Amino acid sequence: MRQSKLFAKTRNTAPKDAVSASHKYLSQGGFVDMLMAGVYTYLPLGYRVINNISNIVREEMNSTGAQEMLMPVLQPKNIWDETGRWESLREVMYQFKDRSGKETGLAATHEEVIYDIVRRNINSYKDLPLAVYQIQNKFRNELRAKGGLIRGREFMMKDLYSFHLSPEDLDDYYNQMIEAYKRAYNRCGLEVKVVEASGGIFTKKYSHEFQIISPAGEDTIIYCSKCDFAQNEEISKLKAGDNCPKCESVLENGKSIEAGNIFQFGDQYAKDMKGYATDKDGEKKPILMASYGIGISRLVATIAEVYHDDKGIIWPSSVAPFMVHLISLNKNEAADDIYEQLTNQGLETLYDDRDISAGEKFADADLIGLPYRLVISSKTGDQIEVKARNKDQGALKSFKEVIDLLKK
Amino acid sequence: MRQSKLFAKTRNTAPKDAVSASHKYLSQGGFVDMLMAGVYTYLPLGYRVINNISNIVREEMNSTGAQEMLMPVLQPKNIWDETGRWESLREVMYQFKDRSGKETGLAATHEEVIYDIVRRNINSYKDLPLAVYQIQNKFRNELRAKGGLIRGREFMMKDLYSFHLSPEDLDDYYNQMIEAYKRAYNRCGLEVKVVEASGGIFTKKYSHEFQIISPAGEDTIIYCSKCDFAQNEEISKLKAGDNCPKCESVLENGKSIEAGNIFQFGDQYAKDMKGYATDKDGEKKPILMASYGIGISRLVATIAEVYHDDKGIIWPSSVAPFMVHLISLNKNEAADDIYEQLTNQGLETLYDDRDISAGEKFADADLIGLPYRLVISSKTGDQIEVKARNKDQGALKSFKEVIDLLKK
Repeated sequence: MRQSKLFAKTRNTAPKDAVSASHKYLSQGGFVDMLMAGVYTYLPLGYRVINNISNIVREEMNSTGAQEMLMPVLQPKNIWDETGRWESLREVMYQFKDRSGKETGLAATHEEVIYDIVRRNINSYKDLPLAVYQIQNKFRNELRAKGGLIRGREFMMKDLYSFHLSPEDLDDYYNQMIEAYKRAYNRCGLEVKVVEASGGIFTKKYSHEFQIISPAGEDTIIYCSKCDFAQNEEISKLKAGDNCPKCESVLENGKSIEAGNIFQFGDQYAKDMKGYATDKDGEKKPILMASYGIGISRLVATIAEVYHDDKGIIWPSSVAPFMVHLISLNKNEAADDIYEQLTNQGLETLYDDRDISAGEKFADADLIGLPYRLVISSKTGDQIEVKARNKDQGALKSFKEVIDLLKK
Repeated sequence: MRQSKLFAKTRNTAPKDAVSASHKYLSQGGFVDMLMAGVYTYLPLGYRVINNISNIVREEMNSTGAQEMLMPVLQPKNIWDETGRWESLREVMYQFKDRSGKETGLAATHEEVIYDIVRRNINSYKDLPLAVYQIQNKFRNELRAKGGLIRGREFMMKDLYSFHLSPEDLDDYYNQMIEAYKRAYNRCGLEVKVVEASGGIFTKKYSHEFQIISPAGEDTIIYCSKCDFAQNEEISKLKAGDNCPKCESVLENGKSIEAGNIFQFGDQYAKDMKGYATDKDGEKKPILMASYGIGISRLVATIAEVYHDDKGIIWPSSVAPFMVHLISLNKNEAADDIYEQLTNQGLETLYDDRDISAGEKFADADLIGLPYRLVISSKTGDQIEVKARNKDQGALKSFKEVIDLLKK
């Protein structure tokens, strides 16, 4: 993509209320645009990151046999009344009357909707286990929204729901999903801690959070750096400096961002919404449910929190909006030619063909944070200066050497 | 995909209020599930069709140089007040107060949001023309919703917005987009009529509709079958039986489904929302806008209206959820093996591995409507019976012949 055509431009100043690095750089870099507090447009650059993350998550969900679908935003009150959540979520769920006077809400989550579909379609053990998911916007009527994409009123989620006839089968899939989640975060460049947690406002049942250590986080976790023990401070009886109950090492604590959570609802929905299926012996059994969320838009911000310096973002290759930032310091045909060749080689390239100073181009490249910067100028001659965004020093290489490096 | 695992199952009965073929077959075939009137879940089969159509539309939009992004559903009243549309769209736009008392709406369209972003980011002719688009749910507070996916309260749209400094440049792109639209509909298997129309509730300016002749349509158009003349009856002074003003042939009329519409807003938004940029001579000029919509979810229904018989849907290959419906009448390893080989050949296959009667399997295959049905049974021996969904007769072929046929 030619940067002269890219919508929108980078900005010199950060939003006034930006306290976190992700909020600052995602706004200044032209990844997102705020419409109102907690409500953002994903501009072309940001939408490319959203899609890269979504595709990683999608692949990992599909690898467990889950099927993708898409449920509605608009929600009727009646199914939420069956679980009592129309009342208990009243504070955080957008609720209003439609033109005909019917009470309507916006999706804060989709357990009620999916359980309603499942109870009408599943009646035998032959149809189970089942796992379905969607990637879609969710809504929370926050009194005060802040922090850019970390906590929004409208945000993008992957939510997956699994259904089972036995607790053992549910446990099996739940553990399989923990592994799928770990792979998804790792592929996004993130080191994740699987944390024992309370169910928050959604459930009192067994749950885990997926936490990423970051000073921008709103949570505090107690964890062991020697083994995989970790608990949310909210529910933990332990303190930093204690001994790890698993491996006896010293426990640490740290601020962290909750980048995902999974819940075992067990037979709660079967009781509330009457979902049953017959087992192999013809006996009627409750359809058990678990649900599994990943905040896709929050992950964009989380990655920017973990990967940045004082000049801008440093995207991991797996989620970067483009792989290469090609900068031409002299308006010349050689750069156009190299742009075309990079594109033909399948390397996604942002080509800064604008008529502005070298300093502005370098500053934008650091702010946007693509993995590799390639510079062509009168000084580089037949060669290209290659610099990784996370390195200080570049090197002169031939075009063939550049391609070999980037294709690794 | 193994049909034994596919969510959800086909149904023997149609929804009570289903009058159109698309409503009936999309529900019975397990493509969609109604949550409330005008609000549907796209089940895995239906979501595959949605994605196939979206990708065709996306490719055609990208071919004009447009950039994909994603704007929010939640909308603040203030930007809609600038154009007076908070009032004029009050009837059809979901409007309510959030927890803090702030008046909020759900996106019925995105002209105000995109024009606000553009006026803050574009200030020179160097940044124009510009075209951006999104594929996203839209909301209309219909008093009565009916007709399945044809007219919903929540529905999926592709909406594109283009920005220009001169009317000639706007016209150029507008005409380019008419051609891109024709290609998109044609690739979906639809014959489209480009119809002169009023702007409906959205604008009084110059606009065109993209109409598909179908008895399920809510519009009536006057058209010439010899040339490309077509007008919406609402604005036409002509009648069927008249002479075509372009080619003198006899005009016809017919019910049709509006599958897309495009509007030239000209300088209306520049006046209302104060969007200006400097031209080459440094002169301040209004930023002109046009917008271009395609109803993605409505297209799913439109295709089903055009392509069906009394047994079910007959999907065109380009949008079919799978290419092949493989049916095994004897539980045997040969079918598993052929399923694996088809998948390895890149042919998307729904494999009916269920333990039910041949009659039920054939009825489901006709209802779901995949382009090719392959049957393996004790009668077919080493061969496979191949039947196209739109043909009455099948033929026995070797596996190699089947692959050759399907790869065409």
